[in-house]
Amino acid sequence: MTPSSAAQLEPSTQTREPRRRTPRGHVDVADLVDRAQAGDPRAVARLISLVEDASPSLREVAERLSPHTGHAQIVGITGAPGVGKSTSTSGLVTALRTAGKRVGVLAVDPSSPFSGGALLGDRVRMQEHATDKDVYIRSMASRGHLGGLAWSTPQALRVLDAAGCDVVLIETVGVGQSEVEIAGLADTTVVLLAPGMGDGIQAAKAGILEIGDVYVVNKADRDGAHQVVRELRSMLSLGALPGAWRAPIVTTVAQTGEGIDDVVAAIERHRDMLDDTGQLTSRRRSRARDEIEAIALAQLRQRFADLHGHADLDVLAADVVNGSLDSYTAADRLLAAL
Amino acid sequence: MTPSSAAQLEPSTQTREPRRRTPRGHVDVADLVDRAQAGDPRAVARLISLVEDASPSLREVAERLSPHTGHAQIVGITGAPGVGKSTSTSGLVTALRTAGKRVGVLAVDPSSPFSGGALLGDRVRMQEHATDKDVYIRSMASRGHLGGLAWSTPQALRVLDAAGCDVVLIETVGVGQSEVEIAGLADTTVVLLAPGMGDGIQAAKAGILEIGDVYVVNKADRDGAHQVVRELRSMLSLGALPGAWRAPIVTTVAQTGEGIDDVVAAIERHRDMLDDTGQLTSRRRSRARDEIEAIALAQLRQRFADLHGHADLDVLAADVVNGSLDSYTAADRLLAAL
Repeated sequence: MTPSSAAQLEPSTQTREPRRRTPRGHVDVADLVDRAQAGDPRAVARLISLVEDASPSLREVAERLSPHTGHAQIVGITGAPGVGKSTSTSGLVTALRTAGKRVGVLAVDPSSPFSGGALLGDRVRMQEHATDKDVYIRSMASRGHLGGLAWSTPQALRVLDAAGCDVVLIETVGVGQSEVEIAGLADTTVVLLAPGMGDGIQAAKAGILEIGDVYVVNKADRDGAHQVVRELRSMLSLGALPGAWRAPIVTTVAQTGEGIDDVVAAIERHRDMLDDTGQLTSRRRSRARDEIEAIALAQLRQRFADLHGHADLDVLAADVVNGSLDSYTAADRLLAAL
Repeated sequence: MTPSSAAQLEPSTQTREPRRRTPRGHVDVADLVDRAQAGDPRAVARLISLVEDASPSLREVAERLSPHTGHAQIVGITGAPGVGKSTSTSGLVTALRTAGKRVGVLAVDPSSPFSGGALLGDRVRMQEHATDKDVYIRSMASRGHLGGLAWSTPQALRVLDAAGCDVVLIETVGVGQSEVEIAGLADTTVVLLAPGMGDGIQAAKAGILEIGDVYVVNKADRDGAHQVVRELRSMLSLGALPGAWRAPIVTTVAQTGEGIDDVVAAIERHRDMLDDTGQLTSRRRSRARDEIEAIALAQLRQRFADLHGHADLDVLAADVVNGSLDSYTAADRLLAAL
């Protein structure tokens, strides 16, 4: 274990060490998984790269990781740009480490075709954790390949899980849809807000109130923070069901670390609730369903693309455009040719 | 044709006239399509309801509409909440009618499980067109059923197309992903911006710069409008390719109608370019491909949900969660059982 283990979890495009391969040119996945379980950050990095690149070894990676997963609590961190997501994530890492937890951080940039570059800002903030051998930090682009986030991110989370992380924080760079997708990958979703974000809570309303398990109003030392808390409380109370988890609202100043311990406590309470009520398993099963389906559908799309002749998608599409075929009949032909 | 034809294109949940059915309880789709082609707004409304409800007649509707489609230019109107989308849409309807065009308006609310209600604001603004027999206005919820927008909206557009519209404006209520989806349905995408929208152009950057064929800076009489135009111009010039369509930037004050004619002119120039270069056909084929695939995949998901025993998705998901199966092998079993 080198003193700068976390810093070495960099994208495969910048791999410094020669890739370890068996004599036949195959990656020795079993060895990588063993080393990852033993805490070797380079093995962790390599496995994530294999997943991210959808390498031919992907299936073997998935198969060998599978028995070693299920321990880590996956915590999604979402929020609009400017709310202080990466500062908060860094603060959470510090607090979790103080509590003796092994921590993984997966930063996903769905809008970038590149790993690493776009996340430089985050990684700089993460430098303070770079010498901590019990912190794995990894940025990842979703590459736009089939299935996007749904395809590669769950496997990357499993790598960090199998490597013994107690908590994996997953955060997105960017806006929109990805926030909801992150919630679909996490056991616990933390939604960050901050005062002075333009439309603020109004804009955040769309979707975000349904996905939060813990709400954090960051930059609580600024004007308008109380207003955000008040609005949030009233909006959350509208949809509250008796007996259900009531998402707490925590105020923080991530820059100084104020309130971060309260966020960690809220995350732990949520995990306890999930455990006690059996919701952890039901949430994970629901996610696994979605993931299996996404993989199956991506493979079917690949088969569609390989069809020729009568069921060639381009031929069918041309007929739909010229009005000689409707799209449902076209879909029937596609399915019949599978 | 009643004097308030447009106003009658309301959601099926509020249908006032008894549904026309043949003696056997089947909808007479052929008759509806004939009447829609002849300009009967009630037949248009009924056909859109059949599509939106994914009624058993959906396939027959698609089949019978198919030969009568391809004439209308589909124009997507996108932009963040508050930029003046519905006022601009209403202004465009007026300008297009003045130019003698038949116009359809489809307002989609992907976040709402209900048709109509959430769009009341828009519909009030649209009241001035309610007595115009050559304007069809319809709001539509995507209902969250399989495939969402991808499933029902293209068919609704075909209804308006078959009914003889020269231009169909399609607009979404709400934020995020749906904007990009709308672009995927349109021949021409108009992106609206306005000064003073918080993060403004920065927030809009994500995705929106790739989808616009025409950019409109609305509320051009307000402070900061020039700044928005300047930033937009510089950002668009970064990605500009020689010879390709250079998306024009038009300034408007939709409240007063200022600049709306310029938007119409830009939309027409874009249509001419699409025609001249063959891009109209290639764009439409690409959309038809996506649509056929979406329908086929939605049907496959339905089949997945119907599988039992060994390939039951719930059983597979439980095994993935307990670590006895990986998600790729689970997907293989699902596909094998199809």
